[in-house]
Amino acid sequence: MKFLTQTEAVKIDEELFNEYKFSVDQLMELAGLSCAHAIAKCYPADCFKRVLVCCGPGNNGGDGLVCARHLSFMKYEPTIYYPKPTAKPLYENLSHQCKSNGISFLRSSPTLESTNECYDLIVDALFGFSFKPPVRETFVPITEILLNTKIPIASIDIPSGWDVEKGKIRENDFEPDMLISLTAPKLCAKMFKGKYHYLGGRFVPPALQEKFQLNLPEYHDCDMCLKL
Amino acid sequence: MKFLTQTEAVKIDEELFNEYKFSVDQLMELAGLSCAHAIAKCYPADCFKRVLVCCGPGNNGGDGLVCARHLSFMKYEPTIYYPKPTAKPLYENLSHQCKSNGISFLRSSPTLESTNECYDLIVDALFGFSFKPPVRETFVPITEILLNTKIPIASIDIPSGWDVEKGKIRENDFEPDMLISLTAPKLCAKMFKGKYHYLGGRFVPPALQEKFQLNLPEYHDCDMCLKL
Repeated sequence: MKFLTQTEAVKIDEELFNEYKFSVDQLMELAGLSCAHAIAKCYPADCFKRVLVCCGPGNNGGDGLVCARHLSFMKYEPTIYYPKPTAKPLYENLSHQCKSNGISFLRSSPTLESTNECYDLIVDALFGFSFKPPVRETFVPITEILLNTKIPIASIDIPSGWDVEKGKIRENDFEPDMLISLTAPKLCAKMFKGKYHYLGGRFVPPALQEKFQLNLPEYHDCDMCLKL
Repeated sequence: MKFLTQTEAVKIDEELFNEYKFSVDQLMELAGLSCAHAIAKCYPADCFKRVLVCCGPGNNGGDGLVCARHLSFMKYEPTIYYPKPTAKPLYENLSHQCKSNGISFLRSSPTLESTNECYDLIVDALFGFSFKPPVRETFVPITEILLNTKIPIASIDIPSGWDVEKGKIRENDFEPDMLISLTAPKLCAKMFKGKYHYLGGRFVPPALQEKFQLNLPEYHDCDMCLKL
């Protein structure tokens, strides 16, 4: 299986939209859904009911919003922390959908203590494959919580703050318990040492898989995600 | 569980888009995906590989296009018959996605003989809950095939041609083997006598379920569809 460079990840994304004519809505829905499924396989709702979903300003955050909504249909009680909501209809609608499905949004950053007390699992949907350091000021408090909490963290696509290719290179990069790689793992996934590595985003056309020589393993039956 | 009138089905659809701010892309993706999952549960790909997906000009046809694409990821070999493609970006893109995923489109109506020979299963995505009779001329040949074929038919939401509320009232209405009701069953589903009745479209917000007193049964775990 191929591990993608940042440039390859960007190119595959562009082809999905430009050549294959997928809409962001479609692929974000499938990506976020696959994350919710992967999480449900590893952290059952009866033990990990209270989930803090931390969403960044870009597509990774959008995946998080979709994931939160699907988790709420699967007996989880997600709470969203979305410190820098993006003023675009797509993100506004995704937020609205969460709110009108009864999911609450934190008004300010949680503290380490409140995080440890109030949640059983954290979903890290802060930054994705287009991230370039440094972490902007707004997100520093939450990344510090991710570094210091003992609650398991499930990262969507990239552990936030990690270098997309070189992985955990900064002293204060945290170690997630789970990584859900979307479409194909990025190079940094080679440095992932947590318990669960899953693949999600079962929508990559065979010709695109071929073109980028992804060598993806086969998904089973109807599964939306796959244990790597 | 409530069985919806045509007016209720239209209202719920409108609320999902206007009040809950879902995009058609999102809900069509989830609806079509749930149909593919329901089909996979009843007609395994090793016995029902060759699937003819018949798509109408509206949203039901769009669900069919999405369903076909997901079936192609699950080891089926779908072929699409889409006699009246709608000239809107949404439908053009859904068609393009199918074609670029290697799914072939029939250029003209199949015959009863070719249908019986070439396919193991038919997906009926011709008309949905906004259908009002009569069946337009373009679709008469395919509905006659559906009436006379012995291949099992899986209908999406409504067996095409049936009255949405009164069900099978015309002499030449066909009997599908499977019905996949989306969001909630419509009144005509009470007259369904086929083998498998499934519910799909696991996205109806709790408040909307409450408002229309849908009394939907609970989906299990990560399931995108539910046997009724």
